[in-house]
Amino acid sequence: MEVRAAVALGAGKPLEVTTVKLEGPRAFEVLVEIKATGLCHTDEFTRSGADPEGIFPAILGHEGAGVVVEVGPGVTSLKPGDHVIPLYTPECRSCEYCLNPKTNLCQAIRSTQGQGLMPDGSSRFSTLDGDPILHYMGTSTFANYTVVPEIALAKIRPDAPFEKVCYIGCGVTTGIGAVINTAKVEIGSRAIVFGLGGIGLNVIQGLRLAGADQIVGVDLNPAKKEMAERFGMTDFVNPSEVEGDLVPYLVNLTKGGADYTFDATGNVNVMRTALESAHKGWGESIIIGVAPAGAEISTRPFQLVTGRSWRGTAFGGARGRTDVPRIVDWYMDGKIEIDPMITHTMPLEDINKGFDLMHAGESIRSVVLY
Amino acid sequence: MEVRAAVALGAGKPLEVTTVKLEGPRAFEVLVEIKATGLCHTDEFTRSGADPEGIFPAILGHEGAGVVVEVGPGVTSLKPGDHVIPLYTPECRSCEYCLNPKTNLCQAIRSTQGQGLMPDGSSRFSTLDGDPILHYMGTSTFANYTVVPEIALAKIRPDAPFEKVCYIGCGVTTGIGAVINTAKVEIGSRAIVFGLGGIGLNVIQGLRLAGADQIVGVDLNPAKKEMAERFGMTDFVNPSEVEGDLVPYLVNLTKGGADYTFDATGNVNVMRTALESAHKGWGESIIIGVAPAGAEISTRPFQLVTGRSWRGTAFGGARGRTDVPRIVDWYMDGKIEIDPMITHTMPLEDINKGFDLMHAGESIRSVVLY
Ligand SMILES: [Zn+2]
Ligand SMILES: [Zn+2]
Ligand SMILES: [Zn+2]
Ligand SMILES: [Zn+2]
Repeated sequence: MEVRAAVALGAGKPLEVTTVKLEGPRAFEVLVEIKATGLCHTDEFTRSGADPEGIFPAILGHEGAGVVVEVGPGVTSLKPGDHVIPLYTPECRSCEYCLNPKTNLCQAIRSTQGQGLMPDGSSRFSTLDGDPILHYMGTSTFANYTVVPEIALAKIRPDAPFEKVCYIGCGVTTGIGAVINTAKVEIGSRAIVFGLGGIGLNVIQGLRLAGADQIVGVDLNPAKKEMAERFGMTDFVNPSEVEGDLVPYLVNLTKGGADYTFDATGNVNVMRTALESAHKGWGESIIIGVAPAGAEISTRPFQLVTGRSWRGTAFGGARGRTDVPRIVDWYMDGKIEIDPMITHTMPLEDINKGFDLMHAGESIRSVVLY
Repeated sequence: MEVRAAVALGAGKPLEVTTVKLEGPRAFEVLVEIKATGLCHTDEFTRSGADPEGIFPAILGHEGAGVVVEVGPGVTSLKPGDHVIPLYTPECRSCEYCLNPKTNLCQAIRSTQGQGLMPDGSSRFSTLDGDPILHYMGTSTFANYTVVPEIALAKIRPDAPFEKVCYIGCGVTTGIGAVINTAKVEIGSRAIVFGLGGIGLNVIQGLRLAGADQIVGVDLNPAKKEMAERFGMTDFVNPSEVEGDLVPYLVNLTKGGADYTFDATGNVNVMRTALESAHKGWGESIIIGVAPAGAEISTRPFQLVTGRSWRGTAFGGARGRTDVPRIVDWYMDGKIEIDPMITHTMPLEDINKGFDLMHAGESIRSVVLY
């Protein structure tokens, strides 16, 4: 079939919105009509060429929601008409990783996914001339139809609005999950969140949901304060307004250091500050942000020997098929908010404007509506 | 009273064995006759001047065992004749840290202890001329009598041999505790231990006690192999005999990386290797060794984002008054071994020979017998 897609033709080039060919689902694959997709920094990381592992031409996008159109042979958990969110971290429920309660990093289709291919080693996308176009993160939601492995689809309730819950496909789950699944924040905790963009705001509402007593947000942009407060931030710190070192300031503000700190900036210097402003004896610091290629974190080992832990999280530690439908329920039940974070919507034709808004810092999330 | 002590007069100087004055215990303090004390690398770290926080003159030593001689006003948990192990990490059972199950770093007397003083801000030791001599780590076991706060004494069973269980005052508890309290290693785990000195051997026997399936020991000295095997090591790796990078070699040896890795070297490069040879998704790396002043650890944040955790441990995460008597029981019951690790004993007069043996790598542990 012919579908409309925004194709990344090469590192640093704008996406090209065009018509491409999409083959139907093979065994254990599902054809999904994408109804909405968010634009995430990770898409831009690849599009811009900053990701050394980026490969082209590819159809990016990993934050979508849509409807099952057709299922391939062997698919048992989904049927046409089901509403789904594609998962860039699948959940096969049978690999060594899925069977280990300490991780969510299902490895079932990892090698082919990393090569931009479906699990059988081929692509379903091609140009009208028949040249293959690669998949991206196993999802390729920058197309109005896509093919996704069954194990990489979360079935969600049919009354959830696509243009909002698509954000649960990455940002919402990453932020809230970092709090709930990775850090396992306890009621009454003190926390610091570095970076008040889309991920940081979701960390903040995750902390509110988990019952944290103090939620400190740190950002160089004072315009972030109002929205972060709406999501539960109790204290705002602008590092440019702090005299002297930031670490002792934050340690003092949190009465000895935070029980949990979260880096949502991707800046390795901020990651160090986050670790060192965690509480002696028990503070945990969680890295969420993706650092530039080659960048390294560092600290004195004394920071760890005196009881701080340094950890990371991917997709918020969520097992997507299990956890994503629950987060959709939380949204529908009003336990979490998404609407104020969707600051812009656009048709696929204007997708490059969405990336412009991201660069300008004007959007929290832009969503393409098909 | 007059007591015999090995006094550290200044950075880098040999200890001077001499007679000093010791005042009796004040409120909440206990006079202990030390019967035996181990010589630990931390004593040497201070004696040599490598520790930037070292202060002199001081009576070092923090790995002792002895008998209560006299208790000061207010002491309720100990009486003359009780056998005790002094604790450089006290356990007051009422501070914010003691009341938090995530840490063992009791802060009740920390500031005075760090200044070489008893909790009231004064020293009990002095020269025969009356010039004060500082305490060290709150224990000062390089004297045949010492004064220790009540909260820094673990009461142990009277049939345990001082010349063996003194080692539980630091090395044994640090190594075994890193496994049991900090890492909480599960039955069937795979683990790697870097550095097969006194601490590393105790990590190894801790892993055996915890039921680990694979216990890899890494050391540049092949002479360490035999003793480590005696304590439960299943695989020995000499990095100088590995072609190419050590990390992929260890990851392969442990079928994807170790569930737990332990650095007992204090070398920040080894700490990085330890982290990176932990298993993707769930591997935890625990720093035990003390690094040189100013040294920093570093890695790519990707190592953490893909599920590894970087942590540290002090005194093996043990709450001394509670845990040390249990470890003494384990020794007396044959659950753990200590005797083969006590390779040398000597009178106090020969204590500097013990440090010579440490430097030459000839001893695992030297113990001074009073
Ligand atoms: Zn994303
Ligand atoms: Zn799996
Ligand atoms: Zn020691
Ligand atoms: Zn305490």
